[in-house]
Amino acid sequence: MGANELLASIEDVGRTPGGGYTRLAWDPATMALREWFAGEALALGLDLVEDGNGNQFAWWGHGPDALLVGSHLDSVPEGGPLDGPLGVASALAAVGALKASGWAPSRPLAVANFTDEEGGRFGIACLGSRLATGAIAPGTALGLRDEDGTSLAEAMQAQGRDPRAAGPADWLADVKYYVELHVEQGRWLAPHGAAVGVASAIWPHGRYRFEFCGQGNHAGATAMADRHDPMLAYAATVLAARELASASGQRATLGRLRVEPGSTNSIPSRVTAWLDARASDQGELEALVAGITARAEAAAAADGTTVALTPESVTGAVEFDHALRHRLAGLLDAPVLATGAGHDAGILAARLPTAMLFVRNPTGVSHAPQESATPQDIDEGVAALTRVIEELG
Amino acid sequence: MGANELLASIEDVGRTPGGGYTRLAWDPATMALREWFAGEALALGLDLVEDGNGNQFAWWGHGPDALLVGSHLDSVPEGGPLDGPLGVASALAAVGALKASGWAPSRPLAVANFTDEEGGRFGIACLGSRLATGAIAPGTALGLRDEDGTSLAEAMQAQGRDPRAAGPADWLADVKYYVELHVEQGRWLAPHGAAVGVASAIWPHGRYRFEFCGQGNHAGATAMADRHDPMLAYAATVLAARELASASGQRATLGRLRVEPGSTNSIPSRVTAWLDARASDQGELEALVAGITARAEAAAAADGTTVALTPESVTGAVEFDHALRHRLAGLLDAPVLATGAGHDAGILAARLPTAMLFVRNPTGVSHAPQESATPQDIDEGVAALTRVIEELG
Repeated sequence: MGANELLASIEDVGRTPGGGYTRLAWDPATMALREWFAGEALALGLDLVEDGNGNQFAWWGHGPDALLVGSHLDSVPEGGPLDGPLGVASALAAVGALKASGWAPSRPLAVANFTDEEGGRFGIACLGSRLATGAIAPGTALGLRDEDGTSLAEAMQAQGRDPRAAGPADWLADVKYYVELHVEQGRWLAPHGAAVGVASAIWPHGRYRFEFCGQGNHAGATAMADRHDPMLAYAATVLAARELASASGQRATLGRLRVEPGSTNSIPSRVTAWLDARASDQGELEALVAGITARAEAAAAADGTTVALTPESVTGAVEFDHALRHRLAGLLDAPVLATGAGHDAGILAARLPTAMLFVRNPTGVSHAPQESATPQDIDEGVAALTRVIEELG
Repeated sequence: MGANELLASIEDVGRTPGGGYTRLAWDPATMALREWFAGEALALGLDLVEDGNGNQFAWWGHGPDALLVGSHLDSVPEGGPLDGPLGVASALAAVGALKASGWAPSRPLAVANFTDEEGGRFGIACLGSRLATGAIAPGTALGLRDEDGTSLAEAMQAQGRDPRAAGPADWLADVKYYVELHVEQGRWLAPHGAAVGVASAIWPHGRYRFEFCGQGNHAGATAMADRHDPMLAYAATVLAARELASASGQRATLGRLRVEPGSTNSIPSRVTAWLDARASDQGELEALVAGITARAEAAAAADGTTVALTPESVTGAVEFDHALRHRLAGLLDAPVLATGAGHDAGILAARLPTAMLFVRNPTGVSHAPQESATPQDIDEGVAALTRVIEELG
């Protein structure tokens, strides 16, 4: 089956009324997608293996020096259809086409579905690849809790997994290359007239939690001068993040928050907000976060409220393997571009030669229902990935 | 039993880990409080009657020209122990003491527990008194939905009530006066050295919903200049509300919002926020809301986002019955003060002579766990309410 057909076969899974997709780690939608992945692997005659973290692999042969291709099947809340599934579907389609053509790899080959890439449920992205590579301690990851208070360990147990098996994975030692195909995020390929590009690097990025604390009180009976409303420092922080990121050419977003008590006629006592910050290098990232924090603290002090910052996850710059990326760019005659988005390939790049292919996104929109690629470009992506597998496999 | 003892007997009902109270209409906590009210009424030999809206009345005698005293037992989310229950407990304590003393009223007397005064569940305050007085149509009220999508009609049905009985209530025609005792909100009595005050008026106030809409997108891959992030106009609106309310001596609060999709690594597509605005007169209220809306619209336009305003409930100024308030202020030798907070007494004031007594709040904090009054002041409040009942009963 082609990648377009594979994607069409899961288009109802985790669909939301707004036309997007909410597929969070270990929820019914991603469980259904795991079953789908297992079924497609079986149909291609591949051997399904799941590691202790929930990462799925469909193997063609076994042993050392393997080539791994794939991506993930989870989404952000209300995300699009392609971030993740395009890479898995393209890998399955490429392997299927190669098998059908009579080609056989010279080394073991596997298609990967990494679990919880988006961090949409437990707050830290790339949990599956971080656990497998030892980038996060199992005790830390398993104790993370979702909005309902369920821990990762509990979520895994509820789906019949033994959380004691989570942690560094054996398969890592057997993998020589990892190649991840992904829908482009942002809009660079369209103006450059290319359907497929090769990644150069991932910007350093982090997630930071701000806790703004004040004094809850009655919204009607409390004079403005007597208030210690933490929402004000939050608002100042949103505007500071926009201003400072724009001025420095970096990126800062406040897209998630929790207000306590969250009542129309109550001044909040606490606003918890998450900052997503990305920058072209580590120094710029640190300067951006420090600048936003200083503005948050100044605003809080002026209101008699407080703010505290906790970095939840910070990932350094990833420079993809130079030899591999030049080899693939030459093979595909494809342009090379950097990205502000994080990926499992960025986590694996710390351990082995890794590369990424991007498929043109005509609007650049991602993490939203409007995320798209044309069927023709999806086929071009599969063709490119097929050539990469032939070259490296 | 005294009011302090009555309050102590419900101090565990609906208590939250933060030391506050979440007692929302038709939830298990307010259902337990309804049973408690029924039990206390029975212990005093009063007749319990519930109207079709869920308002409870404990009658001492029946017939026309009745005196009604009471308040409500629900709270805002994470509210304090006194907003509502102090008035009900004080009324029960005063009636109990009068009964024990051998005093008997010359007219029917009832203690009231109005349902859903705070609007913490269905978004509109004073639903019980609004329904009973015809200030809101039953069809409108019954169709309101809570955060989980449950309608008021469904919530009532789940507790065995017939929503078809909701609407204007017969008891209203039988009531000559309503007196509500309430913990002070704000801090005026303490600096004026008085334990009890009499209300003059309630400021006009309203709840308004802002819908800020933009384009959801990837937080890492979308350049700042390419964004249409509705959080920015929200932030500008928060700061505008503070600035304009402060400058004009009015009150504006944004304490509740919903962010979609609410993901750390996604630019929001929509921010829904509720404005609570109060002002010393109707013209000031309209000017305040218009000023905030204009600033919200200007901010949204600058970002390529949109904003729409929906007034959810707007209540005009309430001037309590002049004759009654002067009579009670003279009787009690108590000062007279206005309030920015809404009450069932404000709704009933449109239909019959109504008065309010406020009991000193040493910190002024309300709608928060720190809301308090001293046991001595609570006893002074009961004594004042007892004198009022003797005077009017």
